[in-house]
Amino acid sequence: MNKIDTVSENLNSLSKNKSLYVIKIGGNVIDNSENLYHFLKDFEALDGFKILVHGGGKVATQIAEELGIEAKLVDGRRITDIETLRVVTMVYGGLINKNIVAQLQRFGNNAIGLTGADGNFILAKKRPVKTIDYGFVGDLDEKSIDPENISRLLEAGFTPVFCALTHNGEGQLLNTNADTIASALAVALSSLYDTTLIYCFEKKGVLQDINDEDSLIRDIDPERYEELKTRRIIHSGMLPKLDNAFTAISCGVKAVIIGKSDDLGQLKDNKPFGTRLSKNA
Amino acid sequence: MNKIDTVSENLNSLSKNKSLYVIKIGGNVIDNSENLYHFLKDFEALDGFKILVHGGGKVATQIAEELGIEAKLVDGRRITDIETLRVVTMVYGGLINKNIVAQLQRFGNNAIGLTGADGNFILAKKRPVKTIDYGFVGDLDEKSIDPENISRLLEAGFTPVFCALTHNGEGQLLNTNADTIASALAVALSSLYDTTLIYCFEKKGVLQDINDEDSLIRDIDPERYEELKTRRIIHSGMLPKLDNAFTAISCGVKAVIIGKSDDLGQLKDNKPFGTRLSKNA
Repeated sequence: MNKIDTVSENLNSLSKNKSLYVIKIGGNVIDNSENLYHFLKDFEALDGFKILVHGGGKVATQIAEELGIEAKLVDGRRITDIETLRVVTMVYGGLINKNIVAQLQRFGNNAIGLTGADGNFILAKKRPVKTIDYGFVGDLDEKSIDPENISRLLEAGFTPVFCALTHNGEGQLLNTNADTIASALAVALSSLYDTTLIYCFEKKGVLQDINDEDSLIRDIDPERYEELKTRRIIHSGMLPKLDNAFTAISCGVKAVIIGKSDDLGQLKDNKPFGTRLSKNA
Repeated sequence: MNKIDTVSENLNSLSKNKSLYVIKIGGNVIDNSENLYHFLKDFEALDGFKILVHGGGKVATQIAEELGIEAKLVDGRRITDIETLRVVTMVYGGLINKNIVAQLQRFGNNAIGLTGADGNFILAKKRPVKTIDYGFVGDLDEKSIDPENISRLLEAGFTPVFCALTHNGEGQLLNTNADTIASALAVALSSLYDTTLIYCFEKKGVLQDINDEDSLIRDIDPERYEELKTRRIIHSGMLPKLDNAFTAISCGVKAVIIGKSDDLGQLKDNKPFGTRLSKNA
């Protein structure tokens, strides 16, 4: 083994076992300034490396309306035409992203706000037109994210804050689902870090009884998941969410947590938070 | 001298003599997609470290109008009220910045789009209210920029693209003149790099006769500057621009070039470009 190999080996063993949280927030946090304030304070207090991913929220819809741009739907699916892309670039990439960054800086977190175009961090492919033309929507694959590239930012002391925008590498920005971005980041970076993916959700987590917030299921492993599906305790809207979570886990993510942003602080105090999905409950 | 000092000394001598261009573009480049395309191609082709700074352009005014936000002027000075700040955060920080980044990535430049809040790169102070309340406008001082902080990004292989936004470190974004940002960046980074500051301008540079683009003055040193002022060849609007340029030079910047964005490619070919201001012509 030559010197360079030894150094690279040492660097690898140094960064392995370092923990990383990839946390996704959506409209229920972004649209409420009090929720957002508390979430960002709790986010800042978490130890280890962190990446924040945020979606849109009502403000994008509101600004689109003010600019006279109507939401385009085809067969109930939202279409990103060029006008809508302009609005989400302004609102996600500018207004929401930069205000989150300024807040995190205030709390002492060295945040840096990004789209997938910045640093070529997330390279997407424009969704091919089949029955529906989704417009400027980007899909991700296993080559979309180079973990070493993002690791350089993390190791330099920055906290990346990604909005729901990517690019195709040919000058075109693309709209990409924030849940998908969070999951792809967690999977890619699990090769370098012990990665936990957290989805902030409007409920406390996966509930036995959807009307009873006290019926939270704390841990789900693949076996338990099968049982909960069979008993139809988990059904409809939760199924794709949890299927995606278990896919991320089978691709190297240590655990996926689904929980309420208000409760994020419990993680810092080593208390249970939300529903934890992992290989072994 | 201990080992750490030696390493730090070596790193300093390594990075010194590395060249850095800080280049500012304004509306005449941003508003014209053909100009912007050519400029970004020439920018990408330049050797050495590079930082791009961009202002607004007509699109900010246009979107403000569409949103029904009127430009506020007091005694002929533009005011940044909270509504205007929202618009510039969207347009400068989102729409313009992210499209420039996506284009630069297309040309193979590893651009990363930033406000001064990102990475705490540019810390400003809200302009104090004297006779006029300018609103959310940020002023810079000699402590606004930590060159080591930005150097970490440059050395990691990224090209920073700054828009005309800063923050106060307490969660507030602020509007800051792009010329001022470019100059402050160049001065701060001149402690680490051989720094050239370039202002892209609507003319070929400083002209002997404002109506004759062939009357370009190639070089100006402080002595020549005094002479040109006495002969009233340089007057009115150009005076503050050149005064600021010579201040930047006296603070460590190697040279300031004022030229047309179309001609930037000449720099790559070692041909003269625009008007070059420096200590010694």
